[in-house]
Amino acid sequence: MPSIDILALFYEQGSKLWGGRFVGSMDPVMEKFSASIGYDQRLWDADIRGSKAYVKALQKAELVSEEETELILRGLDTIAGEWAAGDFEIKRGDEDIHTAIERRLKELIGDVSGKLHTGRSRNDQQVVTDMRLWLRDAVSTLKTDIMQLISTMVERAAVEIDVLFPGYTHMQRAQPIRWSHWILSHAVALTRDAERLQEIHRRVNVLPLGSGAIAGNPFNIDRELLRKELSFDAISINSMDATGQRDFVAEFLFWASLCLTHLSKMSEDLILYSTKEFSFVSLPDAYSTGSSLMPQKKNADSLELIRSKAGRAFGRCAGLLMTLKGLPSTYNRDLQEDKEGMFDCYDTVHAVLQVATGVMSTLMIHPKVMERVLSPDMLATDLAYYLVRKGVPFREAHGCSGKAVLLAESKNIPLNQLTVEDLRKVSPLFDNDVSAVWNYAGSVEQYSATGGTSKSSVTAQIQHLRDWLKTYKN
Amino acid sequence: MPSIDILALFYEQGSKLWGGRFVGSMDPVMEKFSASIGYDQRLWDADIRGSKAYVKALQKAELVSEEETELILRGLDTIAGEWAAGDFEIKRGDEDIHTAIERRLKELIGDVSGKLHTGRSRNDQQVVTDMRLWLRDAVSTLKTDIMQLISTMVERAAVEIDVLFPGYTHMQRAQPIRWSHWILSHAVALTRDAERLQEIHRRVNVLPLGSGAIAGNPFNIDRELLRKELSFDAISINSMDATGQRDFVAEFLFWASLCLTHLSKMSEDLILYSTKEFSFVSLPDAYSTGSSLMPQKKNADSLELIRSKAGRAFGRCAGLLMTLKGLPSTYNRDLQEDKEGMFDCYDTVHAVLQVATGVMSTLMIHPKVMERVLSPDMLATDLAYYLVRKGVPFREAHGCSGKAVLLAESKNIPLNQLTVEDLRKVSPLFDNDVSAVWNYAGSVEQYSATGGTSKSSVTAQIQHLRDWLKTYKN
Amino acid sequence: MPSIDILALFYEQGSKLWGGRFVGSMDPVMEKFSASIGYDQRLWDADIRGSKAYVKALQKAELVSEEETELILRGLDTIAGEWAAGDFEIKRGDEDIHTAIERRLKELIGDVSGKLHTGRSRNDQQVVTDMRLWLRDAVSTLKTDIMQLISTMVERAAVEIDVLFPGYTHMQRAQPIRWSHWILSHAVALTRDAERLQEIHRRVNVLPLGSGAIAGNPFNIDRELLRKELSFDAISINSMDATGQRDFVAEFLFWASLCLTHLSKMSEDLILYSTKEFSFVSLPDAYSTGSSLMPQKKNADSLELIRSKAGRAFGRCAGLLMTLKGLPSTYNRDLQEDKEGMFDCYDTVHAVLQVATGVMSTLMIHPKVMERVLSPDMLATDLAYYLVRKGVPFREAHGCSGKAVLLAESKNIPLNQLTVEDLRKVSPLFDNDVSAVWNYAGSVEQYSATGGTSKSSVTAQIQHLRDWLKTYKN
Amino acid sequence: MPSIDILALFYEQGSKLWGGRFVGSMDPVMEKFSASIGYDQRLWDADIRGSKAYVKALQKAELVSEEETELILRGLDTIAGEWAAGDFEIKRGDEDIHTAIERRLKELIGDVSGKLHTGRSRNDQQVVTDMRLWLRDAVSTLKTDIMQLISTMVERAAVEIDVLFPGYTHMQRAQPIRWSHWILSHAVALTRDAERLQEIHRRVNVLPLGSGAIAGNPFNIDRELLRKELSFDAISINSMDATGQRDFVAEFLFWASLCLTHLSKMSEDLILYSTKEFSFVSLPDAYSTGSSLMPQKKNADSLELIRSKAGRAFGRCAGLLMTLKGLPSTYNRDLQEDKEGMFDCYDTVHAVLQVATGVMSTLMIHPKVMERVLSPDMLATDLAYYLVRKGVPFREAHGCSGKAVLLAESKNIPLNQLTVEDLRKVSPLFDNDVSAVWNYAGSVEQYSATGGTSKSSVTAQIQHLRDWLKTYKN
Repeated sequence: MPSIDILALFYEQGSKLWGGRFVGSMDPVMEKFSASIGYDQRLWDADIRGSKAYVKALQKAELVSEEETELILRGLDTIAGEWAAGDFEIKRGDEDIHTAIERRLKELIGDVSGKLHTGRSRNDQQVVTDMRLWLRDAVSTLKTDIMQLISTMVERAAVEIDVLFPGYTHMQRAQPIRWSHWILSHAVALTRDAERLQEIHRRVNVLPLGSGAIAGNPFNIDRELLRKELSFDAISINSMDATGQRDFVAEFLFWASLCLTHLSKMSEDLILYSTKEFSFVSLPDAYSTGSSLMPQKKNADSLELIRSKAGRAFGRCAGLLMTLKGLPSTYNRDLQEDKEGMFDCYDTVHAVLQVATGVMSTLMIHPKVMERVLSPDMLATDLAYYLVRKGVPFREAHGCSGKAVLLAESKNIPLNQLTVEDLRKVSPLFDNDVSAVWNYAGSVEQYSATGGTSKSSVTAQIQHLRDWLKTYKN
Repeated sequence: MPSIDILALFYEQGSKLWGGRFVGSMDPVMEKFSASIGYDQRLWDADIRGSKAYVKALQKAELVSEEETELILRGLDTIAGEWAAGDFEIKRGDEDIHTAIERRLKELIGDVSGKLHTGRSRNDQQVVTDMRLWLRDAVSTLKTDIMQLISTMVERAAVEIDVLFPGYTHMQRAQPIRWSHWILSHAVALTRDAERLQEIHRRVNVLPLGSGAIAGNPFNIDRELLRKELSFDAISINSMDATGQRDFVAEFLFWASLCLTHLSKMSEDLILYSTKEFSFVSLPDAYSTGSSLMPQKKNADSLELIRSKAGRAFGRCAGLLMTLKGLPSTYNRDLQEDKEGMFDCYDTVHAVLQVATGVMSTLMIHPKVMERVLSPDMLATDLAYYLVRKGVPFREAHGCSGKAVLLAESKNIPLNQLTVEDLRKVSPLFDNDVSAVWNYAGSVEQYSATGGTSKSSVTAQIQHLRDWLKTYKN
Repeated sequence: MPSIDILALFYEQGSKLWGGRFVGSMDPVMEKFSASIGYDQRLWDADIRGSKAYVKALQKAELVSEEETELILRGLDTIAGEWAAGDFEIKRGDEDIHTAIERRLKELIGDVSGKLHTGRSRNDQQVVTDMRLWLRDAVSTLKTDIMQLISTMVERAAVEIDVLFPGYTHMQRAQPIRWSHWILSHAVALTRDAERLQEIHRRVNVLPLGSGAIAGNPFNIDRELLRKELSFDAISINSMDATGQRDFVAEFLFWASLCLTHLSKMSEDLILYSTKEFSFVSLPDAYSTGSSLMPQKKNADSLELIRSKAGRAFGRCAGLLMTLKGLPSTYNRDLQEDKEGMFDCYDTVHAVLQVATGVMSTLMIHPKVMERVLSPDMLATDLAYYLVRKGVPFREAHGCSGKAVLLAESKNIPLNQLTVEDLRKVSPLFDNDVSAVWNYAGSVEQYSATGGTSKSSVTAQIQHLRDWLKTYKN
Repeated sequence: MPSIDILALFYEQGSKLWGGRFVGSMDPVMEKFSASIGYDQRLWDADIRGSKAYVKALQKAELVSEEETELILRGLDTIAGEWAAGDFEIKRGDEDIHTAIERRLKELIGDVSGKLHTGRSRNDQQVVTDMRLWLRDAVSTLKTDIMQLISTMVERAAVEIDVLFPGYTHMQRAQPIRWSHWILSHAVALTRDAERLQEIHRRVNVLPLGSGAIAGNPFNIDRELLRKELSFDAISINSMDATGQRDFVAEFLFWASLCLTHLSKMSEDLILYSTKEFSFVSLPDAYSTGSSLMPQKKNADSLELIRSKAGRAFGRCAGLLMTLKGLPSTYNRDLQEDKEGMFDCYDTVHAVLQVATGVMSTLMIHPKVMERVLSPDMLATDLAYYLVRKGVPFREAHGCSGKAVLLAESKNIPLNQLTVEDLRKVSPLFDNDVSAVWNYAGSVEQYSATGGTSKSSVTAQIQHLRDWLKTYKN
């Protein structure tokens, strides 16, 4: 029984790294399908930095001479210059950034370039070194971005601390709160994202270089030298784990998803608040767009775009996890799916954090509208507390207050226009001093326990976050 | 209380479509964040086709004259020519493909171009028309791709019908089956994907144009004319649904995910079969790669890449669904997330189906290895059936056969080398005719019920699929 | 080198089906981890129906006698009675529904029960037959549920056709529309879900029984007889595909996700409309809840619960797809993850559709509020159309209308209070007849093209959906 | 225009907490849809602990007397006893665990029970306190579980350090490695999961109690007292964040997904290794099952179940994130989706870690098979290194080695049977000392850099992990 070769496949010969082994050729669709140079060229700087460190380690291990080292370093610097200047030319056969740089180095310095790859594996280890270098820098940028956003929010909260507006639960008016309390609620959530980011930084910043393809490095390469050259915090413990696992990417993608989920919620609030019906806030034109059809419209596009991105990032996270699920140990080509999501999530969060900072810096609020819509029924809980302070168990007080609300509704008057007589029908403990309840500014000041909406508590939150920012910076 | 404007934002003035309304300017980060021209330029052809149909409908509604129509049509053709030739120049301010083409049309023919947009909304409706036109064509291409793959598999199954090899469940050898039976099992799964694709085509191929931004079209535009011009099957029923829903994209993304999940399973099988340990199949060099470190290696990269893509597509699907979740009716800017996933899933499936076809066309099988590894214990079920045919209830027969397996293991001999005496210790019903059980070719021929692995049944499957292909083509 | 057995594992002996083979015992954690009886007992009815059909086929194949058939059928009926009455006792060792029923049958009728399993495999095939029978019925119920919801919406739309309210895009007031137009926009989306459900029904309703574990059925069982007995539409084509694929489950889970995503959007709208700020609708107490702390609150919990469920269902879908990804062919124990998501998605959608029907039946609308908030700026597009009708290209007209909006804003007056003189500063084509623009009822009547918000068009939509419902029922 | 009430809804009156407000009744489907008692009863212990602390804080704030405090504490203890004994009776109307316990407390001690809820909100705050208490304990249990698994793996690696077997990349034989190197590669990945778990513990262990529904607590409750009573590490900073965010759940669900993804990869390896074709390992019967149809089969069900669970957990994570996306601030009923996933992921990981520990404790390895399959071509990299050590640039050496592999293949002999003359055709630098290359034990000892597979390096990894375990415990 002969083997099958239905299609005659005669494609022009490529020049792959493993040229010595293969006699056939490539399907051009497969070639394109397989190539990553379209996106992994972003790693050029990391790739060159990694190679520069590696050649130094090879020199120390006496696998390259001092002259060869110099030659390779100069060649790599030339290539870095080409990339930086936008002059690097990608050629047919440059399937990924590593191959492209290796090919160019050989053009520049000849066969000695081949020594650079001694004991080093491309897919298994070089790529993961590049990714860790790149992501480490990206994480640092995001730390700065998120601090700027939090800082903007905190300082805004400090300025606008006297503005009251309705707090909502279930999108229904609940209790009067300070506008700054709302701002800080989102800032506090972001501090957790910032802390998670720092933890990720620690796990990303681990040197995999010197792990070979699977068994390790056979030339007793000095990994401590590599670590120092590349400013990693630690050295990977096991070569198979170092080359085959991608949890550092997965947790970054999830980090992005969760951070953007937080911002999707903040955006939803602001989109609501910017409707005609709420009219609490307006966006400047820099963060709005109009309609191509309806001339009167001004849409909060920036906020809608922010809201949308949680899905985008989480999709990337879902994609990578599903790709990783059930993969055998060590490198499998499936892992090539690790990079696009990482780049995309970084770009997305980087843009979102900046746009959100812009929005939070320039958003106009309408304090008069905010205060005007506070209504006596939002003090119904306070009415119950009035009875609680006179010794009524809360559940009973809650029931009385509910009856008062119903009574006011049936009379079609606001809750605070019920007379003491009306209220006494609900509970005999109501007295003239109940009038003190109908005061929004007074209401919020009750909430002085840690985390509450009183001025002292909100001020304490602001101070807490300012201190946190100072610590976080370092 | 003044509104806050901490950051002074002075950016150069853009020229947006809604110029009459806005007096401020754009944050450049926001501008980039908001722009979609980087990817939606793929819609240029669809956008122009849609506009050409629309101007004809406007003419019929007497909103543009015949001359104006001619002018607009010629302008659009010029632009199409520029795109086709790669000459179209994207300028600053061209935030999306619609704006770019509108801007260019104005350059070419002046203010009359402004008539083209009468009663038509960009984000709400033009974009969705473009997407449906584009996706309809993409779906047609994928139909061809999937038919080619199925056809390749069916014809291969026909040729290799006599090859037996181990069927596995739980990755453990189970029963002897035909290699073609394995091929067809995957082909049959793909026919369901092909059918789902056809259903999607029907739902995609619906005209939204003429829905305005939300309320509909006010000029009694002839939507039937639009439908015919653009070869849609049907006309959207409700303008708000037409502009605000994206289930046609979501179901395409899920389709891609499920189809690629099928192919991930087929790839997993083949990767297994191509290990040294199994050695059932080899990939030609066109679909393998070597190692940059280990000279002896030949890796089934094409199959690993295919296996990885199910995650990629599903990530896109997850992303879109999450973005859609809880969105208010009609157009929100969040919907801008609808296009990249659609393009990416199409590109991915289009490549995967072609590569899979290449693999299935050129894969070499090793029938001798396949048959050599068939072992008598794989006939243990047949041994139980031997007793069933002598009247033993299956559960009891299964127990007897299990004991025979254990006995052979304890004697460290293959199951078929147990003597009749040995077997009689397990059940007195065993007799000399049991020797007929130890025949792989005979075993598979038992499975002649529909869907089984006998030659007649596999032949019937092949015929079924050939007929299906003929019907599907139309 | 000895094999390792650090933990001494002495657990009491289980009684598994494969008793003849195994000499060791089970880890109790493993036993619990492995058992599915906790949830798959829901399949009892399907399991018994499948077995009853199978024994008839065995009889036809002369593998069981008429008397044995009778005995088995009676035994199965007894067991069905026990389940129906809630009397069936699950015993230790009943790891799944199939084992439980087989164990019980043996208790009732003795060893002859063992004949029932001739040529039939539990995990590979019996389970998939049960699931298809169960899901087929579930899908039928959901078809009824979704028709009731659509029908309720359509009839409500017919009654309330004269109510106008603001149509929103980007959550900003866009144009006046009919309330019924909004209702129908969601009903139309649901008809697509209903159609997808029908397609799923067709793919679910395929008989896998008679496929064995992998190779097929060796007793020439009459699968056509099985199909008829169990009222399946078709017979599975390939035994490996029939036992190892779960796309029928996956597409159901995605169906649920997409349908619930639609309903999450409808809920979001209604939650918005039920805020104090919008006040367009109120939910009856049957679909609201109060607050345990705030007596005045009435929350739209039913709608929030509906909104939340899209995530739940999609999580199930994501889980199954990820489990399926990269699995080898045919049955692997991973497939045990297929059932809980299926049950949960059915229960969820079944409840959501009923609750949504309840909400849409009982929701109170406040037409006066709805109409009161229509504002002249929502007619700015109509103002542009006024100019279009006088020959101004739309883009220019759009710009003029935008300037008018800005002018009104700068004068702090509504758009319709600009004088003709004011308007002439923007365009000389404005004349006294512009006053006709400021008419909401007139505005909506313009949108008479198919799918628009004019009365005729909305009436046509209602008729279309009534016709669709009649066709769908059959 | 009358509001619509098509369905007459007359259901029996429930007894909800907000009884004072509502006059209507519940749809029974809605009631069931809304109830969470079916699953949140697991929180009974946490709920009672939280209430006991809260009443003490109320006493300190002089809102309840000492006698009342005693009464309430005793009542709560009674209820705890009922739950512990399985005697607690859930009644109609007990929609969640909080309501159930509150109802029972009232039965036991009368109206004074109503004081317990002073300033405390059920959905917004009590539930989140309960969840944090519960999850904190769950996380502690998982820490123990994961340490046991890692410890088992490390000790096993220590014992089996001398066993060599093939290392694979792309599922193709790559280089000889130590079996213990493989074990440790998975153990190292799990230490990162363990570290992430500790970080989650820190973020979970934050007191939300004392946040009210949104504005905070108005009675100046002593939150530091609450913190100490409940042994939380910190106090939540902002009441709206404390009640409305669920990132502590989301990150736990993702943690579970990532940990299980690691284990899915380890399982995949072991499933492969336990195939007949590999035959490196065997599972004891305690972790395998047989086939109901095929008597000879022994399936690695435990490993397949483990492999499947990554999907399950990630589905839960996807579900919650999607539910959270775009939700407005503070409590919305959608958040009810937070609990089932949390419980399910805990149960799943708890079981998986125990089963994996059992498997890793009892797995039998077959060292002779492992070593027998090592083949000379796996030393091709070493052959290249031979030339590197003689000064050949690696790329050239890699090419030479590749040619040698091809030459051996063309001669159909193993690589190590090429004569020195054969090898000199490839490179003149080959000499008699090349014979030293063909030694697997020698090969692995080269890889002595940190993380490699030499005995010294593997021993160092073992020591590293033993030290890590000691630190982690504390």
